[in-house]
Amino acid sequence: MNSAARPTSQLLSAADIRDLLDSVDAFLFDCDGVIWKGYSLIDGVAQALEFLRSKGKRLVFVTNNSTKSRRQYAEKFQSLGISVNEDEIFSSSFAAAMYLKVNNFPQEKKVYAIGGEGILEELQLAGYTGLGGPEDGQKTAELKPDCLFEHDKSVGAVVVGLDQYINYYKLQYGTLCIRENPGCLFIATNRDAVGHMTNLQEWPGAGCMVAAICGSTQKEPIVVGKPSTFMMDFLLKKFNISCSRMCMVGDRLDTDILFGQNAGCKTLLVLSGCTTLPDLQDPSNKIRPDYYASKVSDILELMEP
Amino acid sequence: MNSAARPTSQLLSAADIRDLLDSVDAFLFDCDGVIWKGYSLIDGVAQALEFLRSKGKRLVFVTNNSTKSRRQYAEKFQSLGISVNEDEIFSSSFAAAMYLKVNNFPQEKKVYAIGGEGILEELQLAGYTGLGGPEDGQKTAELKPDCLFEHDKSVGAVVVGLDQYINYYKLQYGTLCIRENPGCLFIATNRDAVGHMTNLQEWPGAGCMVAAICGSTQKEPIVVGKPSTFMMDFLLKKFNISCSRMCMVGDRLDTDILFGQNAGCKTLLVLSGCTTLPDLQDPSNKIRPDYYASKVSDILELMEP
Repeated sequence: MNSAARPTSQLLSAADIRDLLDSVDAFLFDCDGVIWKGYSLIDGVAQALEFLRSKGKRLVFVTNNSTKSRRQYAEKFQSLGISVNEDEIFSSSFAAAMYLKVNNFPQEKKVYAIGGEGILEELQLAGYTGLGGPEDGQKTAELKPDCLFEHDKSVGAVVVGLDQYINYYKLQYGTLCIRENPGCLFIATNRDAVGHMTNLQEWPGAGCMVAAICGSTQKEPIVVGKPSTFMMDFLLKKFNISCSRMCMVGDRLDTDILFGQNAGCKTLLVLSGCTTLPDLQDPSNKIRPDYYASKVSDILELMEP
Repeated sequence: MNSAARPTSQLLSAADIRDLLDSVDAFLFDCDGVIWKGYSLIDGVAQALEFLRSKGKRLVFVTNNSTKSRRQYAEKFQSLGISVNEDEIFSSSFAAAMYLKVNNFPQEKKVYAIGGEGILEELQLAGYTGLGGPEDGQKTAELKPDCLFEHDKSVGAVVVGLDQYINYYKLQYGTLCIRENPGCLFIATNRDAVGHMTNLQEWPGAGCMVAAICGSTQKEPIVVGKPSTFMMDFLLKKFNISCSRMCMVGDRLDTDILFGQNAGCKTLLVLSGCTTLPDLQDPSNKIRPDYYASKVSDILELMEP
């Protein structure tokens, strides 16, 4: 743990990049606002990633967006012309399934998902039975006299992530499981307030749906995505690299940079996503990355003669 | 203000009722869980209210449920066989409109409502233009590339209450107004976690939708319903009775009883709604009403010879 606020952040220079290339073996990237915005790749990203790979660096993609599985993320990278392997991707949908696995969540219990297909796919790959997800986006909860809204008593965990089809049916289902099923876990993929779901603007993120369930259950969730370092153990086992030889690159102070600092990584903030330079420099901001740059491709541009 | 925790609460006795009848001029009732559960009147309520009226007591109904307007509440009472005048009803939908009024909210600004028809009706009666509400329950927000989700820049307040048709469209609309329209107010009708929307079980309350908007905007709302005493000024002006000669009767400790105590009223908790005797007696509970009873009609039953 190394979450003490850094005194200052410095604008990334060519010398800093040379230092990073010497001292870092793996670069961890957030995706939304760093690699892409919605369905558009951010300028120069492909070339910058290629450059880092050519220098023998490990690339890892750590995203809080739970709507896709790792397989679906690999497809998205492919469709944008970047070749990324499934096992280089750590999504919060995968993290939720792994949390259940490492905590020996019983296979016979079910998991109710408020969120996208990605959560259900990762649950299934981990051997669990998921309920809810996109299909419950069509269901309605009617407030009729003498009608009882039934929920599955064998649900032992509710996983909440970004859900663009959130509705009262799902809110009641998740709330009933958490309030009435003994020991039912409440897992949040992440708590991002907003995110660049489209290239032109930000939209409510998983933090919105998670807060809704906090509001109705008056319980706090277990968070498996950034800034929680839950995923770091998997990363370390997978790549056998020490945290001090990693650099976390992200666009959010309260998730990406805090995650990197919590884990003891070097940190680079890019201003291509949801954080502006005034946000970073605001006296109320206590989260200071080691470096900041306008975008990932600055790494390459600054190195060019 | 008189919110200090009472040392104990006592089970209501015939002697207490005689004391209350001597010392109290107005009884303030919560509705859900006190007068009715969903669409069913709680046993003996009609007779108990009749008894209090026969003793010359003012009856006032103070409800956090914002889905109906005062007019619609009067109709609901009527349909259940209880005659209640519109101006005896103080709903949080009315409170939201009154909050704007007393704060001189400009008539040319619009108000976006996440909630039921009741909020829009009260806004209109107060001379304001409401947007959203039930009609936005049919709308969908598509996350398409290069599509901009447009919102009305003249919205100056977002009012959030219980909304059984909550969806991503409304969450994005309300979030954009609060984040992007300069000075836009964020008003919560109330923050009840759950409520007896049907007679057989509890459902997520306004606290769920309000928390969702807190989650996406990272702002805290102005709460106009209980336990906020905002409505008390209206009550006092209307009925010209001092708070110390009022008794608040409710089923929720954190809204009804706290509201009564905050205002300096006597307080009576009824166990016919969401609070159980173990909840009341739990050492972690710091909110102690003066009295508790199983239901409103105990008032009448205890007085019978």
